[in-house]
Amino acid sequence: MSDQPLAPVPPFEPPYYTVVFTSVRTVPDDEEGGDDGYDATSTRMDEIVASVPGFLGMESARTPGGLGITVGYFRDEDAIKEWRGDAEHRAAQKRGRGEWYEKYSVHVAKVERSYGFERG
Amino acid sequence: MSDQPLAPVPPFEPPYYTVVFTSVRTVPDDEEGGDDGYDATSTRMDEIVASVPGFLGMESARTPGGLGITVGYFRDEDAIKEWRGDAEHRAAQKRGRGEWYEKYSVHVAKVERSYGFERG
Repeated sequence: MSDQPLAPVPPFEPPYYTVVFTSVRTVPDDEEGGDDGYDATSTRMDEIVASVPGFLGMESARTPGGLGITVGYFRDEDAIKEWRGDAEHRAAQKRGRGEWYEKYSVHVAKVERSYGFERG
Repeated sequence: MSDQPLAPVPPFEPPYYTVVFTSVRTVPDDEEGGDDGYDATSTRMDEIVASVPGFLGMESARTPGGLGITVGYFRDEDAIKEWRGDAEHRAAQKRGRGEWYEKYSVHVAKVERSYGFERG
């Protein structure tokens, strides 16, 4: 999870898909001393997912020492399938289970409605 | 968004619903000086949502000075409807648009599949 632009992903015309990935790190970010490869991999994953046809956007937040939530938005199932099947992504997931994550949950859902607010 | 237990909401048997609320505050949390009522209201909202029949769980993360993401999980549309219609919640939303949020997006989605990982 690298630096994200400071903007929520805007509402799109439904239906589209969202993938909610919520995690607890093995080592809290704010205690990270050495380079365990997590940040570099996060940056690389951001690049790859952005190149997937049908990718709509992604947003991330992590409470220091707490939960991390990354939400990806995709036009359709095919886009998710491509992202899920990417070889570098699969290698990163494996390393995530081996090293970086204490636990995580993934919820894949079809967006039925959405709306936004921006201060005028 | 108050302190959340340090655990991702686990996968439930689909279908169920998720509501992704992503926001940028008017005042970044780490620069918050006075008491603008945000924290107290967040805590109260956590209490109210947890009392909604069909509420499954909620998780929050906020990058200091960055995005906040709160994800609520509900058994069905009726549960979301009740949460959306709650009088205190509506008052808090109004105050959010008036004071607390620079911008936000809400995506309401039906979960089709989910899975979890926990270090053995």
